[in-house]
Amino acid sequence: MSIKQITSLTNQTIKDIRALHMRKEREATKQFLAEGLKIIIDALDQGIAPQILIYGKDADHHPLLQRAIDETLKARGQVLEVTRDILEKISRKENPQMVLAVFAQRIRRLSEIDPDSHEVWVALEQVRDPGNLGTIIRTADAAAIGGVILIGDCVDPFSVETVRATMGSIFALPIVKCTREEFIADRGRWRGSVVGTLLTAKHDHRSAPYKRPTLLLMGTEQSGLTPDIANTCDLHVKIPMRGRADSLNLSVATGIMIYAACGL
Amino acid sequence: MSIKQITSLTNQTIKDIRALHMRKEREATKQFLAEGLKIIIDALDQGIAPQILIYGKDADHHPLLQRAIDETLKARGQVLEVTRDILEKISRKENPQMVLAVFAQRIRRLSEIDPDSHEVWVALEQVRDPGNLGTIIRTADAAAIGGVILIGDCVDPFSVETVRATMGSIFALPIVKCTREEFIADRGRWRGSVVGTLLTAKHDHRSAPYKRPTLLLMGTEQSGLTPDIANTCDLHVKIPMRGRADSLNLSVATGIMIYAACGL
Ligand SMILES: [Co+2]
Ligand SMILES: [Co+2]
Repeated sequence: MSIKQITSLTNQTIKDIRALHMRKEREATKQFLAEGLKIIIDALDQGIAPQILIYGKDADHHPLLQRAIDETLKARGQVLEVTRDILEKISRKENPQMVLAVFAQRIRRLSEIDPDSHEVWVALEQVRDPGNLGTIIRTADAAAIGGVILIGDCVDPFSVETVRATMGSIFALPIVKCTREEFIADRGRWRGSVVGTLLTAKHDHRSAPYKRPTLLLMGTEQSGLTPDIANTCDLHVKIPMRGRADSLNLSVATGIMIYAACGL
Repeated sequence: MSIKQITSLTNQTIKDIRALHMRKEREATKQFLAEGLKIIIDALDQGIAPQILIYGKDADHHPLLQRAIDETLKARGQVLEVTRDILEKISRKENPQMVLAVFAQRIRRLSEIDPDSHEVWVALEQVRDPGNLGTIIRTADAAAIGGVILIGDCVDPFSVETVRATMGSIFALPIVKCTREEFIADRGRWRGSVVGTLLTAKHDHRSAPYKRPTLLLMGTEQSGLTPDIANTCDLHVKIPMRGRADSLNLSVATGIMIYAACGL
């Protein structure tokens, strides 16, 4: 394979790539779009090559771009050199990144993970904000927990905005998706502490025993955990609030919980 | 005073309000724009009335809207009933909030705060992201620390995006602005622990003594604290990272630091 030059916006591959801004298309193709050389190098460092690498024909001939080209071709991916116009359309920005890539999605089922393989895991029910989800994946990676489990109707972990907020951590740890019913059916495999965070809990987050493996459950930005999921917990905790604000941003709350549960 | 009806986009007051999307105009007028009834009620609950209240003529006649109207008029503010067109232009959105308000900015100088009045404070050097800043102000409010000190060239705390992320906490605690030189000149008044967060620090954030009053110093998203500011610290700490990601989102890191320093 070699590098292909594309100048036409009506090229079918370019159309397919642009369609990855739509969740439906991402789910149908099991692909996603990542922007910028940094995240692509992060992926390569983790042994993951793009399916398609796209760069602007006036991109800097940085040695890292050459590495991305070489490794993409070696993995039998496509490499496309495109015009600035095409980059702008693909990225939907006036100042697009000069390098973009399409990767295969990797989503796990609950049955594919072993709770006992890590001390701490986090599950998010109905998380709505792409930036929050991306930031939580980044924190989960920094603390080296087992993975992030998405319960119910969550925002797509492979949206451009979420992927950007992960800062490369999207490739670093398992992302698991399940329905509420699947989570409840799987509950028996979690033999450590299953800890729900609720604003109404009586115990502080620091007083929990966090028996291993610990599963932290965080609810939606608006209304917290649903009763069905809250009922599966061994205990409920809250992060103390002593000012006027009665809640924290979800990614901040999850960060505080992850670090507390890890004893870090 | 009574309610004024406005239907023309060329009305001067409407033009002035729209100009508040620009930092220069916010700084010249010392005003800012807040969106949504919730944040306006948050302000009223804290004894702060809008200078201008704006609502759509087809807004729900919610008792809280009536309260906002009454309290704005009582405080000699203006109340404007406007068309949906005008709301869209003011908010720059297709689905605008039906209630908006203009408030006076309140920014403190370092000399106006008493370090000994609270156990913990946070200072941010050159914070760049409006969402991060708003989220940090919200966390600072939840933990009831003394205030948020902005050092050097920071993003505007009164941008629409920052104000939105504060979820009403923008009114709850002092926001202080200073130059790097002013901060260094004021350093002597901080007689507890001045703790800088640096990725290169040797000590963990949990091992710090946090002598009162504690001032936490957080650097910019890209490159951390500048040497000049890092040199003013009594000690440097880092939040442990044990995965692949070598840093946290700034608002998450600041949240973990604030909760650790407060002993919460
Ligand atoms: Co691991
Ligand atoms: Co206070």
